[in-house]
Amino acid sequence: MTYTLDDTTVNWPKRKPFRLTDTYRGYHSKGFWYESSSYEGFEHSGTHVDAPAHFCKDKWRMDAVPLDRLMGPAVVLDVSNKTKNNADYTVTAQDFQDWEEKNGRIPDGAIVLVRTGWGQYWPNKHQFLGTDTTDTSLLHFPGIDPEGARWLVQNRGMHAVGIDTGSLSSGQCANFIAHQILCEADIIGLENVANMDKLPPTGATVYALPLKIGEGSGGPARIIGIINNPEGGGGRDEL
Amino acid sequence: MTYTLDDTTVNWPKRKPFRLTDTYRGYHSKGFWYESSSYEGFEHSGTHVDAPAHFCKDKWRMDAVPLDRLMGPAVVLDVSNKTKNNADYTVTAQDFQDWEEKNGRIPDGAIVLVRTGWGQYWPNKHQFLGTDTTDTSLLHFPGIDPEGARWLVQNRGMHAVGIDTGSLSSGQCANFIAHQILCEADIIGLENVANMDKLPPTGATVYALPLKIGEGSGGPARIIGIINNPEGGGGRDEL
Ligand SMILES: [Zn+2]
Ligand SMILES: [Zn+2]
Repeated sequence: MTYTLDDTTVNWPKRKPFRLTDTYRGYHSKGFWYESSSYEGFEHSGTHVDAPAHFCKDKWRMDAVPLDRLMGPAVVLDVSNKTKNNADYTVTAQDFQDWEEKNGRIPDGAIVLVRTGWGQYWPNKHQFLGTDTTDTSLLHFPGIDPEGARWLVQNRGMHAVGIDTGSLSSGQCANFIAHQILCEADIIGLENVANMDKLPPTGATVYALPLKIGEGSGGPARIIGIINNPEGGGGRDEL
Repeated sequence: MTYTLDDTTVNWPKRKPFRLTDTYRGYHSKGFWYESSSYEGFEHSGTHVDAPAHFCKDKWRMDAVPLDRLMGPAVVLDVSNKTKNNADYTVTAQDFQDWEEKNGRIPDGAIVLVRTGWGQYWPNKHQFLGTDTTDTSLLHFPGIDPEGARWLVQNRGMHAVGIDTGSLSSGQCANFIAHQILCEADIIGLENVANMDKLPPTGATVYALPLKIGEGSGGPARIIGIINNPEGGGGRDEL
């Protein structure tokens, strides 16, 4: 559920793009093959984790987030029918309640994943973010409504909330209020999550493992989903 | 099983040290808290994964390594009694065979972890690598003997081999032959693995999830061990 990090990675406007710089690639003078590189990038570009410190003072930074908050049963809410003609759609408390009506209560420790369908646009920056300029007033993509975020933190005990867009707060949000509410409640954020369409509404386990960056506000991550007992019995699928 | 990435991270001689650079940290003019940063570093410093391409031409690079190769049952071989008075100790086929004598055959798909005890020196670069200069001829730390690596790849079907030192090939190795043998056989490497002393010889599952770096020769990683049914019954421990 992780996009490759390279020079096609959709980068947040005005931030340092991901870049790999070869130290060496080729045959060493002693005859063996050798390659290695240095990397650089921005914590919040590509598939990544938000630590609560990102939008809330004195909360966990990346290295302080307990490991158990980074894993749990997946809850996948598909709102792609609502975003189809509305790039600025924001997910409401009613959307979460409708999901529960069909699938049961969001379990404690869940990783709640909001599928807007935006994954189809990756890595086209203009389509994915609404703009390929640095003018953030032109950002258009779905997110979570402050009212939806508030309902989650007041009524449910999930570990993390993720989305397949560039930000939990929608492109046209004011002041990243959904982020503020989730960070204040110690909820971990997952952004630019890939391949959400391959997960069932329930029945998978997600591991979202970011770099353990000292004092990081977040970190690029490897996110995987393991589907419990896929059709056909036994075994498991990994995404 | 992951060291924090920051400016104390032991860096491979002559390579780019890990560094975090704040974009912003403080109250935004609109009143809310905001912090974010950019990162940079070298693929093979800190807790990380080696892709087979690191020492073998035309093998998997980081983004091509299948997910299932990055997880499996842990096999922990403790050779700390042999390294105590010999920083240049290299792990032999006999060491692996002795482990099997006591603990049973190394299972297919295992993550084989060699515990040399070197974790006690982290993050003291002089003690951990044998030198804090850039003179690589002064490197001293234990590794895997070419003969030991050859026995593993010819006789057992593990997914990965990890170690608690800076390199699978010992500090005084010639031409990184252990690396060459493991990479040639598509075996994933794990280096600078933390907290190995907290794992039992068998009975844990390891997930080693590196950044999915496009064309990377490796990548900084989050490595976790989940102990199956720890003493006291039920539940599980995460490291
Ligand atoms: Zn973020
Ligand atoms: Zn390495």
